[in-house]
Amino acid sequence: MEKIATGISGFDLISEGGLPRGRATLISGTAGSAKTVFACQFLAEGILRHQQPGVFITFEESPHDVRMNMQGFGWEIEAWEQSQQWLFVDASPAVDDEPIESGDYDLGGLLSRIEYAVTRIGAKRVAIDSLSGIFAQFHNPQMIRQALFRVIHTFKALGVTTVITSERVEENGSLSRYGIEEFVADNVVLLRNVLEMEKRRRTIEILKLRGTSHQKGEFPFTITSNNGIIVLPLSAMELRQRSSNAR
Amino acid sequence: MEKIATGISGFDLISEGGLPRGRATLISGTAGSAKTVFACQFLAEGILRHQQPGVFITFEESPHDVRMNMQGFGWEIEAWEQSQQWLFVDASPAVDDEPIESGDYDLGGLLSRIEYAVTRIGAKRVAIDSLSGIFAQFHNPQMIRQALFRVIHTFKALGVTTVITSERVEENGSLSRYGIEEFVADNVVLLRNVLEMEKRRRTIEILKLRGTSHQKGEFPFTITSNNGIIVLPLSAMELRQRSSNAR
Amino acid sequence: MEKIATGISGFDLISEGGLPRGRATLISGTAGSAKTVFACQFLAEGILRHQQPGVFITFEESPHDVRMNMQGFGWEIEAWEQSQQWLFVDASPAVDDEPIESGDYDLGGLLSRIEYAVTRIGAKRVAIDSLSGIFAQFHNPQMIRQALFRVIHTFKALGVTTVITSERVEENGSLSRYGIEEFVADNVVLLRNVLEMEKRRRTIEILKLRGTSHQKGEFPFTITSNNGIIVLPLSAMELRQRSSNAR
Amino acid sequence: MEKIATGISGFDLISEGGLPRGRATLISGTAGSAKTVFACQFLAEGILRHQQPGVFITFEESPHDVRMNMQGFGWEIEAWEQSQQWLFVDASPAVDDEPIESGDYDLGGLLSRIEYAVTRIGAKRVAIDSLSGIFAQFHNPQMIRQALFRVIHTFKALGVTTVITSERVEENGSLSRYGIEEFVADNVVLLRNVLEMEKRRRTIEILKLRGTSHQKGEFPFTITSNNGIIVLPLSAMELRQRSSNAR
Amino acid sequence: MEKIATGISGFDLISEGGLPRGRATLISGTAGSAKTVFACQFLAEGILRHQQPGVFITFEESPHDVRMNMQGFGWEIEAWEQSQQWLFVDASPAVDDEPIESGDYDLGGLLSRIEYAVTRIGAKRVAIDSLSGIFAQFHNPQMIRQALFRVIHTFKALGVTTVITSERVEENGSLSRYGIEEFVADNVVLLRNVLEMEKRRRTIEILKLRGTSHQKGEFPFTITSNNGIIVLPLSAMELRQRSSNAR
Amino acid sequence: MEKIATGISGFDLISEGGLPRGRATLISGTAGSAKTVFACQFLAEGILRHQQPGVFITFEESPHDVRMNMQGFGWEIEAWEQSQQWLFVDASPAVDDEPIESGDYDLGGLLSRIEYAVTRIGAKRVAIDSLSGIFAQFHNPQMIRQALFRVIHTFKALGVTTVITSERVEENGSLSRYGIEEFVADNVVLLRNVLEMEKRRRTIEILKLRGTSHQKGEFPFTITSNNGIIVLPLSAMELRQRSSNAR
Ligand SMILES: Nc1ncnc2c1ncn2[C@@H]1O[C@H](COP(=O)(O)OP(=O)(O)OP(=O)(O)O)[C@@H](O)[C@H]1O
Ligand SMILES: Nc1ncnc2c1ncn2[C@@H]1O[C@H](COP(=O)(O)OP(=O)(O)OP(=O)(O)O)[C@@H](O)[C@H]1O
Ligand SMILES: Nc1ncnc2c1ncn2[C@@H]1O[C@H](COP(=O)(O)OP(=O)(O)OP(=O)(O)O)[C@@H](O)[C@H]1O
Ligand SMILES: Nc1ncnc2c1ncn2[C@@H]1O[C@H](COP(=O)(O)OP(=O)(O)OP(=O)(O)O)[C@@H](O)[C@H]1O
Ligand SMILES: Nc1ncnc2c1ncn2[C@@H]1O[C@H](COP(=O)(O)OP(=O)(O)OP(=O)(O)O)[C@@H](O)[C@H]1O
Ligand SMILES: Nc1ncnc2c1ncn2[C@@H]1O[C@H](COP(=O)(O)OP(=O)(O)OP(=O)(O)O)[C@@H](O)[C@H]1O
Ligand SMILES: [Mg+2]
Ligand SMILES: [Mg+2]
Ligand SMILES: [Mg+2]
Ligand SMILES: [Mg+2]
Ligand SMILES: [Mg+2]
Ligand SMILES: [Mg+2]
Repeated sequence: MEKIATGISGFDLISEGGLPRGRATLISGTAGSAKTVFACQFLAEGILRHQQPGVFITFEESPHDVRMNMQGFGWEIEAWEQSQQWLFVDASPAVDDEPIESGDYDLGGLLSRIEYAVTRIGAKRVAIDSLSGIFAQFHNPQMIRQALFRVIHTFKALGVTTVITSERVEENGSLSRYGIEEFVADNVVLLRNVLEMEKRRRTIEILKLRGTSHQKGEFPFTITSNNGIIVLPLSAMELRQRSSNAR
Repeated sequence: MEKIATGISGFDLISEGGLPRGRATLISGTAGSAKTVFACQFLAEGILRHQQPGVFITFEESPHDVRMNMQGFGWEIEAWEQSQQWLFVDASPAVDDEPIESGDYDLGGLLSRIEYAVTRIGAKRVAIDSLSGIFAQFHNPQMIRQALFRVIHTFKALGVTTVITSERVEENGSLSRYGIEEFVADNVVLLRNVLEMEKRRRTIEILKLRGTSHQKGEFPFTITSNNGIIVLPLSAMELRQRSSNAR
Repeated sequence: MEKIATGISGFDLISEGGLPRGRATLISGTAGSAKTVFACQFLAEGILRHQQPGVFITFEESPHDVRMNMQGFGWEIEAWEQSQQWLFVDASPAVDDEPIESGDYDLGGLLSRIEYAVTRIGAKRVAIDSLSGIFAQFHNPQMIRQALFRVIHTFKALGVTTVITSERVEENGSLSRYGIEEFVADNVVLLRNVLEMEKRRRTIEILKLRGTSHQKGEFPFTITSNNGIIVLPLSAMELRQRSSNAR
Repeated sequence: MEKIATGISGFDLISEGGLPRGRATLISGTAGSAKTVFACQFLAEGILRHQQPGVFITFEESPHDVRMNMQGFGWEIEAWEQSQQWLFVDASPAVDDEPIESGDYDLGGLLSRIEYAVTRIGAKRVAIDSLSGIFAQFHNPQMIRQALFRVIHTFKALGVTTVITSERVEENGSLSRYGIEEFVADNVVLLRNVLEMEKRRRTIEILKLRGTSHQKGEFPFTITSNNGIIVLPLSAMELRQRSSNAR
Repeated sequence: MEKIATGISGFDLISEGGLPRGRATLISGTAGSAKTVFACQFLAEGILRHQQPGVFITFEESPHDVRMNMQGFGWEIEAWEQSQQWLFVDASPAVDDEPIESGDYDLGGLLSRIEYAVTRIGAKRVAIDSLSGIFAQFHNPQMIRQALFRVIHTFKALGVTTVITSERVEENGSLSRYGIEEFVADNVVLLRNVLEMEKRRRTIEILKLRGTSHQKGEFPFTITSNNGIIVLPLSAMELRQRSSNAR
Repeated sequence: MEKIATGISGFDLISEGGLPRGRATLISGTAGSAKTVFACQFLAEGILRHQQPGVFITFEESPHDVRMNMQGFGWEIEAWEQSQQWLFVDASPAVDDEPIESGDYDLGGLLSRIEYAVTRIGAKRVAIDSLSGIFAQFHNPQMIRQALFRVIHTFKALGVTTVITSERVEENGSLSRYGIEEFVADNVVLLRNVLEMEKRRRTIEILKLRGTSHQKGEFPFTITSNNGIIVLPLSAMELRQRSSNAR
């Protein structure tokens, strides 16, 4: 199983090389857990260090907002767009749209737009943020399963390495909104943002990477303006020991 | 990411400057958690210290009741209305209205009224209290997602900075009534009012501010007639230490 | 915010003056938590000490049963009825009634009867016990929200001070049966009756009083034949300390 | 509030005189918690010590089975039937009956049969065991509320003192199957049968008696062939103290 | 209440004589909790030590599989079938059957087959394993109640002593799949298979025997090839004491 | 009950010989719990050490992906396919398929393809991974029960030994997605992947093997590239003791 470096400091260590090339990885987390930052950083690193153009499909935030939100990390998305290294597919609902009836969602149309975008800039990395929005239109669990299957299959056929963000309603309980997503995806990463003693603590965990080994368990991470996500490739327990030894 | 001061003592510190300018922030909390006080104080401070007129869209309490309830804090809303600094949009149900059938809610009509109000007084700050009422009319989670998306988009287009209050049924569990609101909003603030050992304790937490850093975790706050909400920009733990050191 | 004395010993202290005049207060509690006693005592005190006639709208217990149940406290409702100080509006289901289809409930008819009753005796205090019965007829949460809104609005227009009892299914979890009532009401009081170590312990808590301050947290209360509800305006913790100091 | 002795040893003490005369008391408990034993003992004592005939309406067990099951306690129901002191109303489903469609249940027909039975032997005590069976036929919570209301009203009109058994699915959680029964009934008694450290422990608690005082909290009870239910009018805590003092 | 020996070592002690003659006993437990072993052992003992033929109605496992699975205990079912002491009623779904629409299940047909089988070999003991399969076809709780009622009634009319196995989804929570079965049955036995500290521990408990006394609480049991189920008629606590005294 | 060696180190010990020959065993676990690895290893060992060809029916992963994912363990599936020792039945949804309406799933067609495949290579071992996908198409629990029944029956008729993987949504709670699967299957194995103190720990447990004994409780296991799954046939508790004795 070949892997490609994400450039997310520490993550390439715990994943023993990065994300499996040519496959899709689900990034599941609650609101504000850094799903979008992870997705953008994955594309940014492709551009900055590997000459790999990236496509970003956005369902909730407008391209304008994504550009703005990522400036804080020094990622000049607009410049990359001009140099054909970054392409947005804007799948956010048009504001005057009539609400779409369940089941009528034109998934085929969306996938065509994505394929076109990937081909146009020769993208090697794709991020889709977040699919949960369109799943709300499928009442039937079977339809959600098939839609996710079809999306993932399209990316595999394109040969791109993909991250798909996924909404998780509560830190405890089901890993994903519908309890299906984590079974269909080849790879699952969990971003946690847990309240402990009135403080929030962020951790990242690789739940599964089909067909390859990886480090198990939760690892603490922080977000800084200079570096985006930084994973500490030590478990919190080891950290505590180190700091107590240091004293 | 530019921020505007809320004037809520302590909150501008933990948010590292206030609320993101031109965006909407969700204020989620249980009944009596001070959502309405927060929303009014945000507008009041705009008027009192920044010459920024404000529009207050009310769904549950009548304008008359809001005026009365805020007198306790010395905010003379009626005077501000006369000087065109405060404008109410009264979206509370007309009492003789037939119950509205699900899905028929005229969201477009409401948004037009809001746009008109914002333009009329040149509002820079908007508060909407609370959207949960109209969401009850949409059975479909997808329709709730789209309605909230559309409301937020309208405010962004108007260039105003907005707070949207949101009902939370229990202090534990889902952050919002429908488990969707916190994903759609750019910014989320939680107001808690927890029963501990027969005492209530109020805390505020910034759960997420897309595109910018902020302090993490819960901070205690109180409500006083002189100052409205006062956030203590120390965690409860730090507080306890200080007071034990003081002895 | 003007308040009127309830005459419930200790409650006027923790509410810093009683219930907000001209508004409705929700009294929420499990079965047997003393909701009806609270409601009757509120009316009784109006009659006994303030020359304020009262209207009691009953949905479950018949007027005859309420009269009988309150004799234990020495409240001679029948005498008050004769002197036009107390008026029952009997909204309990007629026994031979066909079950009412959902949504067909004639809320307007009920409100007219109440308005008529209030005007007829010049009532200043109203109690409605309990609304949960009629809510069962509205499947739709939006219809419950509107019905409660409309009831409360009617009382406000009449200028009376009102208590509305509300069924709570479990001591833990949601504050009200439908998770909506506590958001619509201006004021919320919780009556608890908790099993601790095989003993029941009654407490009262003011969860919110919009627009005014009040004491926070739970206070123990008892019911005695002489005085009805007696609230101890000390927290249980303070009580324990006092009794241990006393030794 | 006049009460009538149940003859259940200890219960008349904790209820301060027995069950309220002319009213209905709900006996709620899980499977095997002694609901039927309580109901029969209430009737048996009326016959044995107060010359009060009783009517037993049975929904699940056949009259033949009830007779047999109660022989273990020495209650000779068959003899009492012959002397017109005990009358069964057999409301158990006829075995060849087509399943009854929801809502079509002929509640009026059942109530007529009960009225006839009560009049025929001049019954003073009635037991109905258990209503939960017929409630299963009403999907609508409002219909359950009305059905229970109507049943209770019929008994009140007849002037009889009634116990109504009610199924509770789990020892924790809701007091009754539908979360409605305990609000409609005037009086509620809970029978518990809790597993603690691999042993079962039976307790009885009076949750509410409208209009009258009673002892609060749980009291242990046992079932013996000689005496049926025997309540120990001491809390378990007092018991433990007594037995440790005794040593 | 006459009882018949089950021959299950220890169980006849805690049930004070075995299962009530002529009645049905529900055996409820999770998957693999030994329901089928209990049912077969009950029939086997009738044949081996009491000259009582038995009928086994099987819904999930084929007769062939039951024969094979019970050989491990030395029960030669095939031989007993040839000597007319054991008769299978095979109610397992025919594999080519169209899925049966809800409500159309021919319960009457099944009961006729059972009656015929019982009469044919003069069966005194019957086991039905497990009814949960057919209940899945009744959406309506009322229909489940009636179906179980009808099944039990049929067995009573036949004068046979019956065990009915019943699926329980989780070790905690509801005693039965639908929360109804344990109320309709005269007698309920629980088989538990609990995970404690990474070990499974099996216990048996008699939850209720209508009309007769029995030992309360959980008793540990094991399954051995020589003896099938062996109940230790000591509580786990007593066991621990004994073994610590023994040291 | 004859058993066949799985070749999974340690598992044949705790199962006292392997999986029951000619029967189907359910392998239930959360996402990433090693269900697919277990299924493949079971087939691989048949090929490598017992000259038993195997059929692998895949519902989610494509044959291509399974081949690739198992290369990490040195299992050269492609070579085995060429030598007719391994045959894939690809039941993954065709990407352009219209979503299948509930109930229309052609189970018969699938079973024919499986029978054909088994016969063609003379398979002795079959793996089906995972059935949960097709169950999503049956709303009705009864239809799920029948579909699983029919699948298992087909395998029994073919005389093959089968493992069926099954999705489990959460580590706690129901053993299977629908709460039905574990009752229909003859044998159930649980794969757990529990988060404890920020570390993941894998365990395997045999929940039931109908008709035969086996070791009870959870056993730790690891996955290594050299050996696939390796079960430690000591309980975690014994392990801890050993390692503390070793010091
Ligand atoms: N420049 C920055 N410096 C530090 N932290 C930042 C910065 N920008 C964002 N963050 C942090 O990242 C969080 C937002 O992360 P992100 O938008 O990726 O979350 P998300 O999981 O995508 O949430 P959602 O479900 O709302 O889309 C912010 O709440 C903030 O805490
Ligand atoms: N003048 C005041 N002085 C002190 N505390 C006050 C004052 N006015 C209001 N409060 C406090 O604020 C609470 C009400 O806050 P607010 O109405 O903002 O809550 P909310 O979250 O909007 O509730 P709801 O969901 O009911 O709208 C009151 O219950 C009271 O405790
Ligand atoms: N005269 C009395 N003396 C002492 N306690 C009494 C007296 N009358 C009633 N009580 C207590 O009050 C309780 C009933 O209170 P009340 O009827 O107000 O409860 P509630 O909350 O209205 O219940 P429900 O939901 O059933 O209407 C009784 O169970 C009893 O414990
Ligand atoms: N003669 C007796 N001696 C001692 N205990 C007995 C005797 N008869 C019954 N019991 C006990 O009473 C229990 C049954 O009580 P009962 O039938 O009243 O329960 P229930 O609450 O009505 O249950 P269900 O919901 O099944 O109707 C038996 O399980 C047994 O423990
Ligand atoms: N010969 C035997 N020796 C020892 N234990 C055995 C033997 N046969 C079966 N068992 C044990 O009994 C268990 C199966 O019991 P049984 O089939 O009665 O359970 P069940 O409750 O009927 O399960 P299900 O719900 O799947 O039908 C096996 O998992 C095994 O642990
Ligand atoms: N070559 C390998 N070396 C070590 N570990 C591996 C290797 N290949 C896979 N794994 C481990 O096995 C896990 C995947 O196991 P598997 O695909 O069997 O799980 P599963 O239960 O089938 O999951 P799903 O429900 O997603 O199908 C990976 O997440 C990884 O931890
Ligand atoms: Mg995001
Ligand atoms: Mg408010
Ligand atoms: Mg009441
Ligand atoms: Mg009973
Ligand atoms: Mg079985
Ligand atoms: Mg798998």
